[in-house]
Amino acid sequence: MNANYKACLEACFTCLEACNICFHACLKEEHPEKMTKCIELDRECADFCSLAIASMQRSSAFVKEIVSICATVCEACGYECKKHDHEHCQKCADICFRCAEECRKLTA
Amino acid sequence: MNANYKACLEACFTCLEACNICFHACLKEEHPEKMTKCIELDRECADFCSLAIASMQRSSAFVKEIVSICATVCEACGYECKKHDHEHCQKCADICFRCAEECRKLTA
Amino acid sequence: MNANYKACLEACFTCLEACNICFHACLKEEHPEKMTKCIELDRECADFCSLAIASMQRSSAFVKEIVSICATVCEACGYECKKHDHEHCQKCADICFRCAEECRKLTA
Amino acid sequence: MNANYKACLEACFTCLEACNICFHACLKEEHPEKMTKCIELDRECADFCSLAIASMQRSSAFVKEIVSICATVCEACGYECKKHDHEHCQKCADICFRCAEECRKLTA
Repeated sequence: MNANYKACLEACFTCLEACNICFHACLKEEHPEKMTKCIELDRECADFCSLAIASMQRSSAFVKEIVSICATVCEACGYECKKHDHEHCQKCADICFRCAEECRKLTA
Repeated sequence: MNANYKACLEACFTCLEACNICFHACLKEEHPEKMTKCIELDRECADFCSLAIASMQRSSAFVKEIVSICATVCEACGYECKKHDHEHCQKCADICFRCAEECRKLTA
Repeated sequence: MNANYKACLEACFTCLEACNICFHACLKEEHPEKMTKCIELDRECADFCSLAIASMQRSSAFVKEIVSICATVCEACGYECKKHDHEHCQKCADICFRCAEECRKLTA
Repeated sequence: MNANYKACLEACFTCLEACNICFHACLKEEHPEKMTKCIELDRECADFCSLAIASMQRSSAFVKEIVSICATVCEACGYECKKHDHEHCQKCADICFRCAEECRKLTA
C-alpha cells in the first residue's frame, strides 16, 4: 500500500468510529428530535470514510476522487456536530475536521 | 448466478430500498423522537440486505449464513416498523416480513 | 425519494449485479490471469454503485458528487470489460456504459 | 461503545486491512491464476469484517450474530492464504486467524 496513505487512512478509521459512535449516541439522547441532521450526516460520513478506507487499502485508481468527496462530507458532518454540546458530538466534530484535513492533503 | 437466489435477491433489493426510504422519512417526521428504534433498525436492515445481495450475486460460500441473519434482522425491523402508523413504516414492515420469508426459504 | 433518481437507481442496481456476476465469473475463467484488471474494476464499480444507490435512496445531500464519480468508475470498468470476449464481460460492459450515461444525466 | 468490543474491533480493523492489501497484491502476482480462491476470500472477509466493525461501533443488537459468521469467514480466508508462500498471504493468514479468535471470544 502507498505509504502516503498512512495518515489519511488512520484519520478515516478514527472518523468512521467517531461517526458510528455519535450516530448511536444521538439516537439515545434525551432529545433525539434535535439531532436528526447529525444522525443523518454521521451515517453519510461513515459510509464515505468506509469506501475511502477500502480504496486506499486496495490502491484503487480512484483514491483521489473518493477522498476528495470524503473531505466534503467530513466537513459537513463536522459543522453539524460542532453545533451540539454533547461530548460525542464535539469529539466527532474535531475528528471529522481532522479527517477532512488529511483527505485534502492527499488530494492537494 | 444460482437461479434459486432470484426471489430472495429481489426481496432484498426491495427491502434495502424500503429501509433506506423509511430511515430518511423517519428523520423528517414531526416527532422523530418516537422513531429512534425504527431509524436504528432501518440502517441495520439495509446493511444486512446489502451484504446478502452482494453474497448472492457473487455466489459466495457464505450465502446461507448471511441470509439467515438477514432474516432475523428483517423481522426485527418489520416488528418495529409495524408499530408506527406512517405509510413508509407500514410499507417497510410488509416488505421486511416478505424479505425475511424469502431469506428463510433459501436457508430451509 | 426524488422521482428523478428512478432511472439512475435502476441502472445502478443492474450495474451492481452485472459487476458482481462478472467478478465471480472472471475468477472462474480458464485464464483468470488475463482478467485481473477486470476483476479489480468489477469490485470498484460494485462498491461505487452500492454507495450511489444508498445515497439516492436516502436523499443524501451528496448524490451529485457520488453519482459523478460513479460515472467515471462505470466507464473505466466498461472499457476494460469491453476488451474481453466472455459473454459476462460484454454484458457487463454494456450495462456499465448505460449506468455511466444515467449517472451523467443526473449530474448534468 | 461496549468496552468488551475493543480487542475484537481492533482485530477486525487489522484484518480488513490485511485482506484488502492481500486482495490487491494477489491480483498483481506473477501467477494470479493460482490466487483466485484467495482473491475471492479476501473480498468476502473484508466485507464481513467491515460489517462487524460497523455493528460493534454502533452497539448493534446483532453483534453476536455477525461476529460469529465473521469468525467463520476469517478462518476460511486464513486457511486459503496459509497455502501460499507470498509474504502478504502469510501475513494475512495470521491476522485472519487472530481475528477469528477474537470474534470467537466475543461470542463465547
